[in-house]
This record gives sequence, structure tokens and C-alpha cells, in this order.
Amino acid sequence: MVTESPSLKQAITPHVYINQLSAHVDQEVTLKGWLYNMRSSGKILFPQLRDGSGVVQCVVLKNAVQPELWESLKGLGQESALIIEGKVRADSRAPGGYEIDVTNAQVVQEVHDYPITPKEHGTEFLLDHRHIWLRSRRQHAILKIRHTVVRAVRDFLDNDGFTLCDAPIFTPAACEGTTTLFAADYFDGEKAYLTQSGQLYNEATAAAFGKVYCFGPTFRAEKSKTRRHLTEFWMVEPEMAYATLDDVLTLSERMLSYIAARVLADRAEELKVLERDPAKLEAIVPPFPRLHYDDAVKMLQEGRAKGLLEARFEWGGDFGAPDETFISGHFDKPVMVHHYPAEVKAFYMARDPDRSELALGVDVLAPEGYGEVIGGGERATSLEYLQQQIATHELPPEAFEWYLDLRRYGSVPHAGFGMGIERCTAWMCGIEHVREAIPFPRMMYRLRP
Amino acid sequence: MVTESPSLKQAITPHVYINQLSAHVDQEVTLKGWLYNMRSSGKILFPQLRDGSGVVQCVVLKNAVQPELWESLKGLGQESALIIEGKVRADSRAPGGYEIDVTNAQVVQEVHDYPITPKEHGTEFLLDHRHIWLRSRRQHAILKIRHTVVRAVRDFLDNDGFTLCDAPIFTPAACEGTTTLFAADYFDGEKAYLTQSGQLYNEATAAAFGKVYCFGPTFRAEKSKTRRHLTEFWMVEPEMAYATLDDVLTLSERMLSYIAARVLADRAEELKVLERDPAKLEAIVPPFPRLHYDDAVKMLQEGRAKGLLEARFEWGGDFGAPDETFISGHFDKPVMVHHYPAEVKAFYMARDPDRSELALGVDVLAPEGYGEVIGGGERATSLEYLQQQIATHELPPEAFEWYLDLRRYGSVPHAGFGMGIERCTAWMCGIEHVREAIPFPRMMYRLRP
Repeated sequence: MVTESPSLKQAITPHVYINQLSAHVDQEVTLKGWLYNMRSSGKILFPQLRDGSGVVQCVVLKNAVQPELWESLKGLGQESALIIEGKVRADSRAPGGYEIDVTNAQVVQEVHDYPITPKEHGTEFLLDHRHIWLRSRRQHAILKIRHTVVRAVRDFLDNDGFTLCDAPIFTPAACEGTTTLFAADYFDGEKAYLTQSGQLYNEATAAAFGKVYCFGPTFRAEKSKTRRHLTEFWMVEPEMAYATLDDVLTLSERMLSYIAARVLADRAEELKVLERDPAKLEAIVPPFPRLHYDDAVKMLQEGRAKGLLEARFEWGGDFGAPDETFISGHFDKPVMVHHYPAEVKAFYMARDPDRSELALGVDVLAPEGYGEVIGGGERATSLEYLQQQIATHELPPEAFEWYLDLRRYGSVPHAGFGMGIERCTAWMCGIEHVREAIPFPRMMYRLRP
Repeated sequence: MVTESPSLKQAITPHVYINQLSAHVDQEVTLKGWLYNMRSSGKILFPQLRDGSGVVQCVVLKNAVQPELWESLKGLGQESALIIEGKVRADSRAPGGYEIDVTNAQVVQEVHDYPITPKEHGTEFLLDHRHIWLRSRRQHAILKIRHTVVRAVRDFLDNDGFTLCDAPIFTPAACEGTTTLFAADYFDGEKAYLTQSGQLYNEATAAAFGKVYCFGPTFRAEKSKTRRHLTEFWMVEPEMAYATLDDVLTLSERMLSYIAARVLADRAEELKVLERDPAKLEAIVPPFPRLHYDDAVKMLQEGRAKGLLEARFEWGGDFGAPDETFISGHFDKPVMVHHYPAEVKAFYMARDPDRSELALGVDVLAPEGYGEVIGGGERATSLEYLQQQIATHELPPEAFEWYLDLRRYGSVPHAGFGMGIERCTAWMCGIEHVREAIPFPRMMYRLRP
């Protein structure tokens, strides 16, 4: 049964949020939220109220409230909308340290048969109900940590002198080939492709602002259903003029350490909810191990020799997920694998001047099997080299004329990287699948809700 | 002519940015940037160097440097890439307060015939060259202010207890009808629409987190080429559970005032470059005038009677750009027009309980003809009412089942708004067209670069 209360009675005591209760001990307050759970014990009800900022246990004594109020409260189902007035009592035994002695309450909406119950639900059911699954303690904790990751990234870059220059979402050409691009209908039959990376645009803004970043959604039409993939995910991409591969390694190290420290400082409660061992995050401090691609290949070949990997890895290939997991398993902090074969990297990568088969690129592999969280490197500066590369990769040259202008007019060494926000969040949280690290995940067979 | 310097010589003195010169007076430093302009006077060159953080004038005395260096510098064209070593000298007559007495320099790339010259260029030419136009002082200033606007919005909301919950870009259904939606090809022939607003998703996350915001790109396939329109623009949308229209008015007022104060505090130099009168921003302080729609209509009808408006405005319509400009022209700060006819507002708007033909909505109109910068209001809470509305607007009911769940399970009064970042930035900057308020504008006939 559902009832409606179109307008609320004005409460007399001040509205406070549950995460502010410590400032209101022994005071009368009003809380506005939803019923998270309720126990009863004869003439006492223990409704747990959540309001988005936290959960608090309330105590309703039958003898202390109006009989109508007792009746209206005692049968309420989970997620009933509820305004509670009462006195804040400090109680070290209570989960958050406080309880509310209820003096009055208003049922805004009585709810029964809330679909998500404490019993186990299947993944598809939960994803179909993502719009309310978000209210669950675990999902709530993950998205609070996502917010902290985003905030930490922006604070870090802003305080380090980077200028936000958002790259466009609609692009006429592809950064890394067109097979994994989503196409949209623009005007008059023209196609626009949804960005996979702001990289090329960052190179233009870095020449204007020195140090820049873009931070927005990116899209990959990959027919892949692994636990690491979303078709729509957020990415931050810093880019620096007059910078080299080494600057990218240092920046990656500093930024990831800063993110981990902020999550530890600001989200201790959420890490507890997720049963995430803080030691895993405390380990993320500079310096990170640096591993030349040659040595990573040796490591994989030794793993194969010991029977720890199924297939033999040959020099020249790109790593698959099992390879990344094997390599990162040797370290308790992120490992920075650098100097990949140019063949497996993007066309715009600079080459090692001493070994031209190698690209001045790096992948930062997170520990615990979370895979590549950062990919980046130094960009080629030579006009002639890039013209060759565009021809070799069979990219449409006219689409890159503007990009080549950046090599005609003030070309300087520059470098940067991209970091996927959801992959980083999943790693911070210690959760299995990136789909829980974004409010409304989009996957190959998932466009709803 | 273009030359390449693949690797840079290591400078001995520390690399500093031009905006840090005040901390290095009388010290030897290295600056890395591009030639912005050069004057010469016999045996002295005055190259102006820009590095993204600022512009500084350098002084090269022919007798004080190697002859080869003098030769390599004297013919350099605009945007040549240049590393300069020299001593910082405080000079109150110099534009930024400092000059550099050059001791050494390295030409990283010699450039001639840079396409953007001090002469006037046409708009199409500049937009075609947006990737380098960004280096111009005026464009640089505008995008610095855009960064400050974004930063101010996020700081304001984060410090006010809002949780960032990004809404999806790919959506299966439209928020406000499908005529202005861009469609993309998802998998297996399915269409995904690019979001116009995170509104509906915000209502789900507000029920989970109390106070939330989404902040991302939004898309409008409007065949409109006015100075206020982009097909791709960024929008911030806060939403609050247990909140009313009045809370939206207060939040709008506080947020816009905070943005203006931050721009004034952090971007004084850029406002000077743009010749923006700071008094216009200083006026943006609470309280903002509040104007009932009925009174706005009277104002328009009086304007018509005085011959100040071409057409007579009838009660019940939505305002056009000339109407908004006329109304906002009465005030030197934003005016909040509230209680619009429900007919012209979105289907999910709550109705005024006392006059059901009115929606509990507000448009905040910026002064100086910048139009609506904020639109928002209170959302309908009743399941039955929304079912009716979906039928009346001929929206596909199955696409909104998840949304209706929010009214089935814990429906409470809630409210929020959306603010367009580029429109707000254009207003802060005092510039004519929103296309300059985003790094790479997308318009009806503009998908490049």
C-alpha cells in the first residue's frame, strides 16, 4: 500500500543530517529520511533511519509517544519515508555512536514490499533495480569513495597548476581506430563519433596552457563482457608541455598516492563497510617499482617455465589480463611497466631515440589483479614522423591536419596519461567488478535503467 | 621553415613558470615556452615569452650573449618554441611586474608564418583554427575563467554536503521529448540517446544520498544557431531530497554568488584582459529579486504598451530570448522568475497546491541579456499524477517504470536545478557568444577540429 503526503508539517526542531549528530548531543533535532530496518521488542521499537549521510538507530517507547504514532510506526516496511523528531543521545555501544530517543514522527510515505530485501539477489535483478539498489549500504559506500577519488584527482591537479580544458565528446575522427567507436547521427546525415580519449585535444590545450587535463566520460564499443569493462566510463587525462616519459612516471606515482591517502583519510567508514583492508591502500606510496618491458617479458617467461602461466609470452606482444595480473602479483604497490614495443602502442607515441622499436610509453598496473589503471607516455614531436604514422595506420590524413598543426607551430616534447575513474575506484574499494563503481553502468547488454 | 630538436639540452637553472616569478627575483631561472611577440631596438631584442601560465618580457643584449644565439633569436617568428635562461628582475613598469635578463636560450623549434596574426580574422577562420586560437590572450583568459567556474561549483557543492553521482550519458529514453535528442548506434541495432539532462537519474540518487549532483556533458540536437546555443555543453545539476522550490531559490542564489566571488578573487587578471567590469560581478550577491510569473507577464505587457517590445506577450506562454532580456534588464543581478504555467514546463514538475495550473518551477535569468542560467524546481511526488503526465505527454510508459519506482518506494518532496557551465562562463566573462566559453565548441555546422 502506498499513501501520499503532498505537503509536510513543519517540524519545530532544526533539521540535521545524521553525519552531523555529534554536534547536537542532548539536543532535540529533526531527521528526515527512510526506514532502513526495524526491530521491535514488546513496547519498544528500534527503527533504523537512513538519510543519505548515514544510518542511526532510533528508540520509540510505546508509553512515551501518542498511541496513533505508535500504531503508524509499528507496521512500517523498509524504505518508508519518515521524519523523526527526538533527542540525540551519545551511546558508545550504538553503531555510529549515537541514538535518537523519539518524541514525535511523521510518516511521509508508508511502503511495503520493497523489492530489495536482505536475502541474496541475482546480479541481473540488482542491475535492473540499480535506481534503488544504490540505497544499499555497500553501493552507497562504493559511490562515496568514487566521489572522493574524483575530488582527489581534481584537487591534486588543480593544486599542481593544471588547467581544466574539457575535450569534446563529439569528434570527427578516431584516436585509436574506428572499430570500437560509437557513432551518432549529427546533422544532415553526418556522423559524429563519441570520444574514446581526449588525448589529441589535450595536446592542443597543453601548448596553450602548459599543464592541462580533461575529465569526462569516454566510450568504447568493445564487445567485451569482462569485469574490467564498461561501454561508458569516466577518464581523467593530464598532459604537460615540455615534459617527458619520466615526468609521466613521477606524476602517476604522486597522483595515485594522493588518491589513496585521501580515500584513507576521508572514507574510513566506507572502507569498513566494504571490509577493505586499509593496509592495501597504505602501501600505495612512492616510489613505485619501474619495470622495463624487456624485464616484464622475462618475468612472464619465467612464470611460464615454472608452470604458473598457460601460454608462453613472446617479446613484442601486448599483455593480456592474466599477464598483467601475474606481473602485478610480484608487487604490493602499482608497478610501472615502460618502453613497450611501438607496434602495440598508439600512432602518436614518441620512440626511444636509442632503440627505435620501443615507444616512450608506460602502463601502470594496479596490484591485486586490477590491471592497467594508467596508460600514457611521451608524444612524437616530429611532423614528418607523424605524417608517416598516419599513413602507416591508414588513418584519414585530412582529419588530422589540425593535429599536425601542433607540430608545425611550436612543437615541443610533451607527455601525459589517462586514468580510468571506475577502475581506480574499484581498486580502492577492493570490489570485483567495475560495474558497481559507477552510478548507472552501461555494458554491452545493459542500457537500463 | 620548421626545424626539429628531438631532445633538449638540460638547463642548469631550475625550470619555473612565469606565474611563479615573484618567488625568484634576482635569481637565475629557466623558462620554457613559446614566442608571443618580439620587438627589437638596434642591439637589444625584447622577446615576449608565454608558457601557459603567463607572458613575460625578456631582454637580450647583443653584447651579453654569444653571437650564434643572437643570430638564432633575431629572426624568430611568433610561436617559435623557446627555452630561455636568465635573471629575474622586478620592474614595476613591466606588464607582469618582472622582466628577464637573458643569459642563454635554446630554440626548440623555429616557426614562421603562424596563421593567427594580430590582424583581424573572420569567425569561421578562427573556429577552424580553434586548436591554436586557444593560445591567444583573450581565449586563454576565458578558459581560465571557465576552469574557475567549474572549480567553484564543485567546491560549493562538495562543501555543502552534496555527493557527486554522475548520471549516464547513454539513455534509453528522453527526459523532455525526443525531437532534440541525438541517437547513437548501440549494440545489435539498438539505439541509445545522448543525455539532455541527468534530472531523472538525480532523483534516484537523491533518494540514496540525500543531496547529490551530476556534472557532465549534455547534448541538444537543436537546429538553432543563436549565440546562446551549443549542441554539446556541460551542465551541473544538484538535487535535494526533502526539499522544496524555496530551497532551490536559496541554493541558486548562494551558488551563483559563490561563483562570482571566486571569479573575482581568482581571476582578476583575466577579467582585465577581457575588459570585464568587476562591478558587474560584485553585484551578484544575495538576495536576488524574486518575480512571480504573473508579475513577469505584467512587466512584459507594460513593456509592449510603452513600445519597448514588438509582440504582446499573453499569459501562459514561455519566454523567448527578447522577453528574458527585457525582464532581466530591470535588475542588476539575476532575477528568479517562479511559478510558471505547468503547460510550458517538464512533465515531472510539481504543481502549486493552491493554483494547480502553475508549476513549482523557477528560471534564473542572468542580467545583461545572458538569459536563463538556471532552471529547476520541485518534482511531483505522486505516482498517480506522474502516470497521468506520462500518458498525457505520450511518453513510452515502460521506459519510465524505474522512475515511477521512486514514487512507490519512499517518495518525498524533492527539488533541484540545472545550470549550464558555458552560459554561466560567458556571463562571468562578459563575452558575446557561448562558443568561446568551451575549448572545442560543437554547433550545428561545427564538428571540427
